[in-house]
Amino acid sequence: METLFALASEMETVVEQGGSSVLSNKVMASLFYEPSTRTRLSFEAAMRRLGGQVIGTENAREFSSAAKGETLEDTIRVIGCYVDVIVMRHYQAGSAEKAADISAVPIINAGDGTGQHPTQALLDVYTIWKEFDAIDGLTIAMVGDLANGRTVRSLAYLLSKFRVKRIIFVAPDVVAIKDDIKEHLREHKIPFSEEDDLVAVAKKADVIYQTRIQRERFGDRQADFEAAYGKYIIDKQIVALMPERARILHPLPRVNEITTEVDSDPRAAYFRQAQNGLYVRMALLKTILAPES
Amino acid sequence: METLFALASEMETVVEQGGSSVLSNKVMASLFYEPSTRTRLSFEAAMRRLGGQVIGTENAREFSSAAKGETLEDTIRVIGCYVDVIVMRHYQAGSAEKAADISAVPIINAGDGTGQHPTQALLDVYTIWKEFDAIDGLTIAMVGDLANGRTVRSLAYLLSKFRVKRIIFVAPDVVAIKDDIKEHLREHKIPFSEEDDLVAVAKKADVIYQTRIQRERFGDRQADFEAAYGKYIIDKQIVALMPERARILHPLPRVNEITTEVDSDPRAAYFRQAQNGLYVRMALLKTILAPES
Amino acid sequence: METLFALASEMETVVEQGGSSVLSNKVMASLFYEPSTRTRLSFEAAMRRLGGQVIGTENAREFSSAAKGETLEDTIRVIGCYVDVIVMRHYQAGSAEKAADISAVPIINAGDGTGQHPTQALLDVYTIWKEFDAIDGLTIAMVGDLANGRTVRSLAYLLSKFRVKRIIFVAPDVVAIKDDIKEHLREHKIPFSEEDDLVAVAKKADVIYQTRIQRERFGDRQADFEAAYGKYIIDKQIVALMPERARILHPLPRVNEITTEVDSDPRAAYFRQAQNGLYVRMALLKTILAPES
Repeated sequence: METLFALASEMETVVEQGGSSVLSNKVMASLFYEPSTRTRLSFEAAMRRLGGQVIGTENAREFSSAAKGETLEDTIRVIGCYVDVIVMRHYQAGSAEKAADISAVPIINAGDGTGQHPTQALLDVYTIWKEFDAIDGLTIAMVGDLANGRTVRSLAYLLSKFRVKRIIFVAPDVVAIKDDIKEHLREHKIPFSEEDDLVAVAKKADVIYQTRIQRERFGDRQADFEAAYGKYIIDKQIVALMPERARILHPLPRVNEITTEVDSDPRAAYFRQAQNGLYVRMALLKTILAPES
Repeated sequence: METLFALASEMETVVEQGGSSVLSNKVMASLFYEPSTRTRLSFEAAMRRLGGQVIGTENAREFSSAAKGETLEDTIRVIGCYVDVIVMRHYQAGSAEKAADISAVPIINAGDGTGQHPTQALLDVYTIWKEFDAIDGLTIAMVGDLANGRTVRSLAYLLSKFRVKRIIFVAPDVVAIKDDIKEHLREHKIPFSEEDDLVAVAKKADVIYQTRIQRERFGDRQADFEAAYGKYIIDKQIVALMPERARILHPLPRVNEITTEVDSDPRAAYFRQAQNGLYVRMALLKTILAPES
Repeated sequence: METLFALASEMETVVEQGGSSVLSNKVMASLFYEPSTRTRLSFEAAMRRLGGQVIGTENAREFSSAAKGETLEDTIRVIGCYVDVIVMRHYQAGSAEKAADISAVPIINAGDGTGQHPTQALLDVYTIWKEFDAIDGLTIAMVGDLANGRTVRSLAYLLSKFRVKRIIFVAPDVVAIKDDIKEHLREHKIPFSEEDDLVAVAKKADVIYQTRIQRERFGDRQADFEAAYGKYIIDKQIVALMPERARILHPLPRVNEITTEVDSDPRAAYFRQAQNGLYVRMALLKTILAPES
């Protein structure tokens, strides 16, 4: 991860200097079975900034052979005939792993249902690293939909590779953090707690990682959605309680869970975080496609 | 505008000679919340012809974070982290201005609801300029849906910067030209009239700018649509009345408002006009992204 | 065809060596009115591998001016103003020809309804040629939906230019091969037969070209679909009957008509066939856009 982060830092300079042509012979497929703005566009921009080419679909579920009954495995096998790397988002947990098992070219998981979103976690950790110069010793609170939010799941896994001081989970009951993550943290001896008072947490956390209550993951359970939505909002009052060196992150998109009045506060790091997505994904693509250059 | 038109003329030569690489370090996002063929594809082709790269979505409304409840402002802030310029079409009037207010990168308005479509107006005026070698002194008739047609609105604004002889508006009552445009022309002392006899107008106009009655802008008011649709058709009979040096323009797409038998008449300039869209958009992108090269 | 195949063979080397820049000044439009994964992506990858650029739409029916009532002819005329070649898939038989009649730039038919799919046929024949070093003298069985499958239709036409030993059609009654194809083969003196015993055919055919029963072509006739679906499945038992030098082809996507247990058999050539699509389309694009380079 440190190697990747160092490379991501270099990428900031590459972008400033007008890009690179290190991937000029490479073609990436972006294969998205679910909507995405920032993940897809930042991957595609990352490839372009390194001189590479992109083909793909922004709605694979409806417009590709999936609509004709083709299995994911067949789709991957065929697309792997045309390109050098496949970036995929799918609506089923485990689909990226299934694809990687049979693919002739590298698969990058850009989110698989309620499963994982590893490149998001990488850019989240990179952002913390850049904002604090370190990960070890920090108190990191994760707030919002911790059950369905794959970014939270991936971030918790990734943080378990560092020596953070504590992870605090703050979630409405219906979307509390799941046991597999807690078990994973216990195994790695990462101190964690579940709390329900955002005011208390705001006073002590170094990082508040806010997330959106994702209506689309609730399906018919609209009562559950209503119960969860709007319970933990970060507004001016909450921010006023936070230490000056603290930071607010959010994987975005946000709806109402951080009020826009917070955006101009220096502790609001979420747009810098989005920007970091470009650099981390450039670093990833270069590492995979041109490790020696 | 003259500088831009001169550059657009140069671009014709650039395309003939196989393109340029002046924007090879630049990435454009095309962010379309509404369907588009010619505007989106001509912008994307323009970027490619200058060596630049493109990322984007052709259905932002459904496939991007907008579907998750993200505000346009947040979407623009994030995409601006990845690219050098954003070309956007949105279904709400004023949205391009809203985006430009907070964007870190230039925003090009590719149509905002019933608001404006400035790059269309630029290519319209460029076409008139190329066909007549001048704009001043011309009599220009605008026909069709003048209430909802944003191209007409933008064109009227732009023509007010020249000394045209007269603008004639010819529209079914339900889609007559709006007061704000008339007010604007009065302020700029541009003579204009509203007429309802296309035969009489055909005999005296230098330019007939025909437009489509846009079913999608009528919503539930189908009776209004039926009343307007088919009232002013340019066919062989109308063309026969026009002076030889006169020209027919149309922003396209057309449905039935110009019959296809007219296409081969030298006065039919609408496909040349479409072609000019490429050159004008190349000129715009170069002016914005590489003004010094 | 032999020139094209020789060039396609060269393209394998070009891809291995990291691509070419022979089309670096060229822009292709991909204009798809129907879903496609492999055809669209392989054309786009082909263009990229040769250094060319791509613009387009993956859902022209809904997102382009077609939704506003524009004719295909107008769309083609306009897009031809922006690009050097148009690759189009359309839902109506004959549409590619209609487009080619008025287009200023070359049109490549990437499938027109139940009409033709000529580039698929080219890659099919190329695959047979590569697997057997010849086409003449082979017994080629076509299985599945022979009425609606445009790939089968195009392949039969193309094979009539060679001296194959025999073509065998194996299809459920409701989707039997149509008379125009049979008439064409008779004219070209190509021996053919219609048979219904896949076991007997498996023992004698050099090539089994399996196809999918296409639910989307049946419309309301679901009873017909049910009757046809699942009648001729290639599984381990069928493969065991085939000569060792025989080959199974399939234009893909498949649903259940070849079981996945067959994939690892050396006679299963369908993924090699998909890969060949890239090379054949590279050869086509180069032939059309840069014949002299």
